Amino acid sequence: MNSSSYESFFKPQGIALIGASADPYKWGFRVLVNILAGGFTGLICPVNPKGGTLLGLEVYPSLKGLPREVNLAVITIPAQQVPEALRQCAEQGIRSVVVISSGFSETGPAGRTLEDELRHLSSQKGLQFIGPNTMGIFCAESRLHALMPPILPLFGGVSLVSQSGNVGVQMLAWGKERGVGFSKFVSSGNEGDLQLEDYIEYFADDPDTKVILAYLEGLENGRRFLDIARKATRKKPLILFKGGKTDVGSKAAHSHSGALAGRYGLYQAAFRQAGIIEAETSDSLLDYAAAFLHYPLPQGKKIAVLTRGGGWGVVAADACREWGLELPALPNPLIKKLNQYLPPYWSRGNPIDMAATLNPEAVPQCLEALVQEEGIDGILALGVDFGKRTSQMVERLIEKDLLRGIDLGKKPDEQRDIHLIMKLMATHRKPMVMVSGISTATKTVSSPHGEAVLFPTPERAARAMAKLWQYSHFLQKEALHALQ
Amino acid sequence: MNSSSYESFFKPQGIALIGASADPYKWGFRVLVNILAGGFTGLICPVNPKGGTLLGLEVYPSLKGLPREVNLAVITIPAQQVPEALRQCAEQGIRSVVVISSGFSETGPAGRTLEDELRHLSSQKGLQFIGPNTMGIFCAESRLHALMPPILPLFGGVSLVSQSGNVGVQMLAWGKERGVGFSKFVSSGNEGDLQLEDYIEYFADDPDTKVILAYLEGLENGRRFLDIARKATRKKPLILFKGGKTDVGSKAAHSHSGALAGRYGLYQAAFRQAGIIEAETSDSLLDYAAAFLHYPLPQGKKIAVLTRGGGWGVVAADACREWGLELPALPNPLIKKLNQYLPPYWSRGNPIDMAATLNPEAVPQCLEALVQEEGIDGILALGVDFGKRTSQMVERLIEKDLLRGIDLGKKPDEQRDIHLIMKLMATHRKPMVMVSGISTATKTVSSPHGEAVLFPTPERAARAMAKLWQYSHFLQKEALHALQ
Repeated sequence: MNSSSYESFFKPQGIALIGASADPYKWGFRVLVNILAGGFTGLICPVNPKGGTLLGLEVYPSLKGLPREVNLAVITIPAQQVPEALRQCAEQGIRSVVVISSGFSETGPAGRTLEDELRHLSSQKGLQFIGPNTMGIFCAESRLHALMPPILPLFGGVSLVSQSGNVGVQMLAWGKERGVGFSKFVSSGNEGDLQLEDYIEYFADDPDTKVILAYLEGLENGRRFLDIARKATRKKPLILFKGGKTDVGSKAAHSHSGALAGRYGLYQAAFRQAGIIEAETSDSLLDYAAAFLHYPLPQGKKIAVLTRGGGWGVVAADACREWGLELPALPNPLIKKLNQYLPPYWSRGNPIDMAATLNPEAVPQCLEALVQEEGIDGILALGVDFGKRTSQMVERLIEKDLLRGIDLGKKPDEQRDIHLIMKLMATHRKPMVMVSGISTATKTVSSPHGEAVLFPTPERAARAMAKLWQYSHFLQKEALHALQ
Repeated sequence: MNSSSYESFFKPQGIALIGASADPYKWGFRVLVNILAGGFTGLICPVNPKGGTLLGLEVYPSLKGLPREVNLAVITIPAQQVPEALRQCAEQGIRSVVVISSGFSETGPAGRTLEDELRHLSSQKGLQFIGPNTMGIFCAESRLHALMPPILPLFGGVSLVSQSGNVGVQMLAWGKERGVGFSKFVSSGNEGDLQLEDYIEYFADDPDTKVILAYLEGLENGRRFLDIARKATRKKPLILFKGGKTDVGSKAAHSHSGALAGRYGLYQAAFRQAGIIEAETSDSLLDYAAAFLHYPLPQGKKIAVLTRGGGWGVVAADACREWGLELPALPNPLIKKLNQYLPPYWSRGNPIDMAATLNPEAVPQCLEALVQEEGIDGILALGVDFGKRTSQMVERLIEKDLLRGIDLGKKPDEQRDIHLIMKLMATHRKPMVMVSGISTATKTVSSPHGEAVLFPTPERAARAMAKLWQYSHFLQKEALHALQ
């Protein structure tokens, strides 16, 4: 597989949509509409024996006579007709094909035979195909949305390959809500030809991809996957969510994708060895993507927890411990420094409990002291946007006319605090992972110093920090190994 | 402890705020403002030696001369002055006191001595107090917001006692975002007098409380707690989140509340035995509260999973298995029934994979068939609000003028589907736990048949279902036990 063949998948000059339809209940209509809505930068050529026009485009009755620029075919016609369409693609010099059509190995032995035919044909004719039974592909750079579901992902640095179209599309939708943008997405379908690891290999060398995500149910060739993953993880983080961990889930996976789900324990050991970051749940996949996009890697696992109140410090401390992070004791000079900013009864320990201080300067002062401390590799900053809740109450009071003539003084400015954190991170290259006091979902916020992620709970922030450290530790070991 | 003494805490006729202040940087100002903003239904009497007026209220220079209705004191003055204030309360016949002031056992031996003095005084004078070092209390029925932080909780059926003010207040804030309403809240502070279990005992008999929540770091008297919890769980669900599970977290807990954090494993065993539902993470506490508020209990653990696509079915199946639920095979008559609604290539297994059908009637038809099936105790319905995403795309297409003259036909109506689910639940008394295809946080939706909860992931929905089953199973065992 060379990268130029992937270019025709993700950045084609022209697309033939084989099976384009005027019937809104057919995928040949919906995919076309999605391609149009997405603003694809190249040529769009619907193909249907009926000819005519469709959504303002000329319809080609057959592949003959298609403009030369067309170097990608997207197929939605019934399964039985796909082999013939592949032959015609080959004749027209189209070597990259996305087979959206279903009715192949996922349906039983007859479908499997048909899928084998696609594979043999492709190998014989020098084609490559994605699918069959794929939900399609997306590329931000070419504005390509050759997808079944109506989704316009946010653009950004994450590329995702998913063995489930549904799971993949949900990640794109969640990304939009959380501010996690995508460069490329592939629903790999039945993997009749191209396999999960082929896309990982491509993403590893793709300059627009900063973080690779994968949803995996099963592998045809575990060794090849691990070889490719091991090379990829030296270049960029690869975060993986495994479906079919249990016997019940594995049985369900078998019924829908034909992939053989293997034993989970073996997978986990292999993932760790290859430097793959595992996401334990579906929503942690996006949490970790956001963390790796926006936070620098910690150089060690010594974490300081800054909290407005004891309870959240306890919860954060538990989570750090459970996920393998350490909370070092604070050295005396640092305690002396913090004494200046905090009430006399503050904890003097780690977590640093600010004990509900009303001093709005305490957060930035403490954070600055902490990030400068050599023995601290990263910070969990809890409740950084807490000020917003106060502001809402103040508005309510003004509305109720309770604050007439009263000066509430300088109020906590969560935006200022978040911007300061971004600046400190950029200067000191230490992760300062933020926890919202308001939001119930992970979200991205912008600042003049870049983008930042706020996690909804200390547990999720601690988990993300632990994953940053896991990857950093892996890279350190790899570097040592290379020197020996 | 009798319930009438609790009435004066939660539904006082009048409050004395000892330490009321015009200084917006003092808690004596902020608490007063919160009480006013909350719309307390009784008398509000600020007390401060300076006298005068404050926020439109007459300030009493001392407790003498307070109106007779005043039966609750809220104290924010410095720790050293609190014993004397307690004496004066006793003299005035005020027997219920909330000590917000900090500087007691949480600060060391001197503070502990002072806290002991409060306890002895109270016992001698026949008082009861909450705190010290509490963030205050809230009661929906009396509109009492005697709280340090500016929060106006949503009203509803949940009552919460928290050994951390911060954690408690965050739950109130999250409840607001997710549509989980509260009846009562207590930040129990240092528990110098009233203990966590005292509030649980009261909530268990309180008709406005449907679900009890607790955040626990440590117990003074484990046996008493378990006795009370065991009685409470026979009446209503008690959901508990434990802080200080690890050595590190336990150390942090010790430093801030003076509570002795015990060994987690022992706690867990005791919780299970007493029928307490444990929340594993801070956000699962609210997830479970929402589930117990709005879903009926399953009579068994046999679950059907309805999904739009295979991948999410796999993830849901894994989660059900991990949390102790079962996915039974579908009986033949049910498969035949579902054949009428689903594409020919549907899974014919459980999870029921609707295989990306474009038939908008398939969801209600399948759900109706599933809920009627005797061998199924509960349903996980994935992507019930999926239609919304399609609608958003359709709007985009209309905006781009791509849909002129095209009839997209009947589109999936997520509101209709959710309302149908609510109706089926009301009829069949089986939980049909819904997963959103859109939202990234747990949320409550309204219907003519009541309120419903949507979970953001199948894992969180499966966990909630497993907890409903755990409690149902506990009640079944208790009932059997009572018969023997």
